[in-house]
Amino acid sequence: MQETTTNSRNLTMLTDFYQLTMANGYFLEGRENREAVFDIFFRENNEYNYAIFAGLQQAVEYLTNLSFSDSDIEYLREQKIFDEVFLQHLKSFKFTGDLYAVPEGTMVFPMEPLLTVKAPLEQAQIVETALLTIINHQTLIATKGARVKQAAGNTSVLEFGLRRAQGPDAGIFGARAAVIGGCDATSNVLSAKLFDIPCAGTHSHSWVMSFPDELTAFREYARLYPTNCLLLVDTYDTLKSGVPNAIKVFKEMREKGIEAKGIRLDSGDLSYLSKKARVMLDEQGFPNAKICVSSDLDEYLIQSLISQGAKIDIWGVGTKLITSFNLPSLGGVYKMSAIYENGKQVPKIKISNNITKITNPGYKTCYRIYNKETGFAEADLIGLRDEKLPKDKMTIFHPIETWKRTELTNYVIKDLHVKIIERGKVCYNLPTLKEIKEYCNAEKGTFWEEYKRLQNPQGYKVDLTEKLYKLKNEMLISLGKK
Amino acid sequence: MQETTTNSRNLTMLTDFYQLTMANGYFLEGRENREAVFDIFFRENNEYNYAIFAGLQQAVEYLTNLSFSDSDIEYLREQKIFDEVFLQHLKSFKFTGDLYAVPEGTMVFPMEPLLTVKAPLEQAQIVETALLTIINHQTLIATKGARVKQAAGNTSVLEFGLRRAQGPDAGIFGARAAVIGGCDATSNVLSAKLFDIPCAGTHSHSWVMSFPDELTAFREYARLYPTNCLLLVDTYDTLKSGVPNAIKVFKEMREKGIEAKGIRLDSGDLSYLSKKARVMLDEQGFPNAKICVSSDLDEYLIQSLISQGAKIDIWGVGTKLITSFNLPSLGGVYKMSAIYENGKQVPKIKISNNITKITNPGYKTCYRIYNKETGFAEADLIGLRDEKLPKDKMTIFHPIETWKRTELTNYVIKDLHVKIIERGKVCYNLPTLKEIKEYCNAEKGTFWEEYKRLQNPQGYKVDLTEKLYKLKNEMLISLGKK
Repeated sequence: MQETTTNSRNLTMLTDFYQLTMANGYFLEGRENREAVFDIFFRENNEYNYAIFAGLQQAVEYLTNLSFSDSDIEYLREQKIFDEVFLQHLKSFKFTGDLYAVPEGTMVFPMEPLLTVKAPLEQAQIVETALLTIINHQTLIATKGARVKQAAGNTSVLEFGLRRAQGPDAGIFGARAAVIGGCDATSNVLSAKLFDIPCAGTHSHSWVMSFPDELTAFREYARLYPTNCLLLVDTYDTLKSGVPNAIKVFKEMREKGIEAKGIRLDSGDLSYLSKKARVMLDEQGFPNAKICVSSDLDEYLIQSLISQGAKIDIWGVGTKLITSFNLPSLGGVYKMSAIYENGKQVPKIKISNNITKITNPGYKTCYRIYNKETGFAEADLIGLRDEKLPKDKMTIFHPIETWKRTELTNYVIKDLHVKIIERGKVCYNLPTLKEIKEYCNAEKGTFWEEYKRLQNPQGYKVDLTEKLYKLKNEMLISLGKK
Repeated sequence: MQETTTNSRNLTMLTDFYQLTMANGYFLEGRENREAVFDIFFRENNEYNYAIFAGLQQAVEYLTNLSFSDSDIEYLREQKIFDEVFLQHLKSFKFTGDLYAVPEGTMVFPMEPLLTVKAPLEQAQIVETALLTIINHQTLIATKGARVKQAAGNTSVLEFGLRRAQGPDAGIFGARAAVIGGCDATSNVLSAKLFDIPCAGTHSHSWVMSFPDELTAFREYARLYPTNCLLLVDTYDTLKSGVPNAIKVFKEMREKGIEAKGIRLDSGDLSYLSKKARVMLDEQGFPNAKICVSSDLDEYLIQSLISQGAKIDIWGVGTKLITSFNLPSLGGVYKMSAIYENGKQVPKIKISNNITKITNPGYKTCYRIYNKETGFAEADLIGLRDEKLPKDKMTIFHPIETWKRTELTNYVIKDLHVKIIERGKVCYNLPTLKEIKEYCNAEKGTFWEEYKRLQNPQGYKVDLTEKLYKLKNEMLISLGKK
């Protein structure tokens, strides 16, 4: 029987039609093997200050599984636009380029090259769309997961959104990304199995409704799952019926020597209800029973509930996390930054009247500068690959408001890019999800709270190295003269 | 080689963990075969007045492909919570129930049962999550697609969003849904192949950047694709460089007897630029060259551009369509409405302090009442299955503000529900995407413009039949007495 893994899917045709018309063009001109460099990055947005990079594993699986099937090629032939020699050539199409990226779980900022492809032009072009789909999605949800976890602080966050995800993959990979960002478990069984994530959940309203009354439903659940007994108390009336019935069952369990886990609230005024329920539970001798809530939660509502003194131990976060409801796309782009002509790198720039839409040219990486004493990140520098940066003292400056300058001393520099694929072969040991989650957690610990604040965060410095700044400026001046 | 179809994926484990703990419970109590009825519906939201139902084909494929693999069962065993007899029983798990739904492409409204499952309790429970994932997603994007097309009127809409979709499925099935809603073509090659959708696209900025200059890039594209020559003119400077270079190439093509298709604008002030470009094209003898635009479009921006007199023939709509950016979830739910006890149907209701969250009980359908003369829909009635409604005259009333009454005469009634699966076997001829799209278009034609208006639409009447109203009221009174 077919095994349920999404990893074995062939997504070669998951591309925009124009990638194939361009590839056909490059091929017919004999330019398909000219090497080109493309970066994925996202631009400023008003909602999220930082992002958590995610999706690399699926991007690597995609790149290393590329192949057009006979029926794919037949479909393309029917479009009557592609040259037959090109179609024949697609039969042996595979990715033979290099891939650099920041590791999954890295905290990243606008304009930074998150993933860089250096490959024959034709390949680099065809893989654009799917790479963006994968990275845009998982980075978005990992970021949202980090924000939700940040609001929840030391309390637990469960990812509950599968039913509201934008299709199966959005649920499957969304759960993966949310956990990278900081969520503790998921209700999604397939994701839990595929990525070894703790699986969470108890029962729904329909369990209660399937019994003649609530008390019977609770008793039966407690009998079946004595060690996992978290009862949903809002089917009929939370404070009049749900909590009292739950306490009755908890007492019956205690007589048998079993401690119940707690209750879940899924509707109503969660601040008021959680406080009232806490008092009822405490008074009846269940101070350790947890209170779990769900109901259209996001980072802002969690923050507000905590500030109101709500008594909540576990947050089940669904729709607003799995869709990143208030910002459903980070808008990541994939832009050409260099092309090789006769073996020589020619940097490329995309200009625009909108200053934030001008790209950074050249074969680049991203350097992070840490203060040696505090261990905290002080600034990032987008620069050219393998730049020699000053080791002891450096003046960095804002890439547009260049009079804003900062002197740095006593630092260490880390090149955030890691080589993932070399000439089509994976040369990187892909970490497990658990390792990625731990790395992400450590990453967050290297940034001051002010940068991570959910509202009005301090802007983290992302400047250009002097070398890249000069290159960019010269190119802009030279284009302006044309 | 593995064929790229998502239809053959086994998504049995794509469920919430609690569905399995509840199923285990029902099984151990010997209640797993008791039949239950569940409905999918969505509640009012402030953004979208109507929705276009979509995703049925994938829901049917999901239900008819259910099976737990050995490794799925082994994974569940490792959770140390499920009974071994239940796990053995899962090996032969399949869907043996009935499924009713409105056809894909139907215009639907809040609270209406869109899809109704009648199945053994265990099955009905396990399939909840994936059914919601599939229907919620595609219905959302079909609705957004319909709104975008509505704004565009007689001009063409191309779905361009794959790179910003929330994962591969969101792109694949999102394109399908957008086309159901009214979009004319997609850039997504895999969707185009899987669902026989026209495929659209030309070239990107990187094509232009890969050449020494824009004119050479245009010439080369025109030489390769003489019959599909739509040139992207905003890589360097739209009016100073892009449009003049395009016109130069169009003239060269005309000398060879070929007419170019037109230009694409992807940035800047689309109203201003399209008007200027139109004048330039017209003055140089290309009044038939089309102007295609893309750049963060949605229904509101399209409406605004049209009202400004922008000269646009084709809209490429990406991020905001494929994510339904301003409303990334319709919030559809799946609620138990009846359970059979000793062969007798017992209606079920979920109550709430929030009146809009109270469910409608019973084994239901949705009736649509059309005016015989105009052919337009006048109101929908949520009612019990196989009700005999008056044929000549009827008074309908608002389900909450019951004093709002409307007399209807001279009408025909249509039961919107179609039987899709009977005892696990598909008994419905699944239409092609083209047929669904045509049906959806006809559906839209049966509603007055006032209901479909993008802003401040008139509320369409969705009432309850008298029989359902009485049943619901009696249940609420009886629950209130407890």
